[in-house]
Amino acid sequence: MARKIAILGGTGAEGTGLANRLARAGEHVVIGSRDAVRAQEAAAKLRGEIGGSAQVEGADNAGAAAQCDVALLTVPFAGQAALLKSLKSIWKPGTVVIDTTVPLMAAVGGAPSRMLGVWQGSAAEAAAELLPAGVPIAAAFHNLSAELLAGDAPVECDVLVCSDDEKAKQVASELATKIPGVRAINGGKLENARIVESMTALLIGLNIRHKVHSAGIRFTGLPL
Amino acid sequence: MARKIAILGGTGAEGTGLANRLARAGEHVVIGSRDAVRAQEAAAKLRGEIGGSAQVEGADNAGAAAQCDVALLTVPFAGQAALLKSLKSIWKPGTVVIDTTVPLMAAVGGAPSRMLGVWQGSAAEAAAELLPAGVPIAAAFHNLSAELLAGDAPVECDVLVCSDDEKAKQVASELATKIPGVRAINGGKLENARIVESMTALLIGLNIRHKVHSAGIRFTGLPL
Repeated sequence: MARKIAILGGTGAEGTGLANRLARAGEHVVIGSRDAVRAQEAAAKLRGEIGGSAQVEGADNAGAAAQCDVALLTVPFAGQAALLKSLKSIWKPGTVVIDTTVPLMAAVGGAPSRMLGVWQGSAAEAAAELLPAGVPIAAAFHNLSAELLAGDAPVECDVLVCSDDEKAKQVASELATKIPGVRAINGGKLENARIVESMTALLIGLNIRHKVHSAGIRFTGLPL
Repeated sequence: MARKIAILGGTGAEGTGLANRLARAGEHVVIGSRDAVRAQEAAAKLRGEIGGSAQVEGADNAGAAAQCDVALLTVPFAGQAALLKSLKSIWKPGTVVIDTTVPLMAAVGGAPSRMLGVWQGSAAEAAAELLPAGVPIAAAFHNLSAELLAGDAPVECDVLVCSDDEKAKQVASELATKIPGVRAINGGKLENARIVESMTALLIGLNIRHKVHSAGIRFTGLPL
């Protein structure tokens, strides 16, 4: 049976954008939301936009997580811990979790171009503490513009993938390269997510100063 | 009289590389070092490599700072505070200081791909506290490969310039664009240097994983 990919918090801009790209690449996507009806509406809208045989369903977050082999976390940082606590007994062993969360100050009413300090070092490491044993995590997709993900044009941006688990790193890298234009780059250990997450705050600042929503990043000088 | 640019700690790899590029662009450069003789030797070596009318001198750090209109700080983080304390009464009012320092764990015997937490938020903000009033600071040049700076080929890397002072930001941006291939990008306030500094640790990690010394960064999706 083909794998299913849950996008938890998938009715937000980043989640919907990732659902769009992965469904266009032929993946079977389950959008998760606190509200199953909203998730189903978002899924129907995406199926309409993509057309053809796009496989996009909607479910509540727990329902989406329970049935999937890979789960992307795309909830705002303010909701990340509560969601993961609620899913502790839900995960299938071996599910690969891919965290895209950025701990922006916006989570507590501050600026989206500033970061919160997270005790564990990063939102990804905080998430890792809330997963059961046997559910590995990678951090990826932080630096992709939601606006660009919503379309189907190539995205001029690299995706850094950080993980302490080889399988999780491999799955996240493979999914990243399904987005036209994107290169997956090995970002090293999960602890490096703190840097990659903070680069999103920098990109948001660049977007604000340039009045765009499309800032991204490419690495140079690497034998890729 | 044409301006002079001091490169404090300029006998290190990053400092010598920046001296090389700025001298090639026609700037009058004074390499500063704890040891004036070492600085003069490094200057003579650069003059030989660049040839022609290259204007490169050497002096001790205080002598270099005292005579210059712009000063790049390229000392390792472990030496930054002591140097700035020693220069407090040396600076000419209006000298623009450009900090390139990255607080790597290497400063205390740790990994060059990990960062130290700096109380003020960044090495640049720590430096700002140690400058007298009337000596503005910008943070820039953190992400440029020393190996690439040592040559004369275009450098495929953007330089983010962070500052709370418009003149300092303008001077740092102008100097960055004197390096062929480099674009200067407004990185916002000085506090954002914490992100830009940490990106160097990420690039060092990429260099280590790919066995190169040339990793750099380009921003995409901006109307530049």
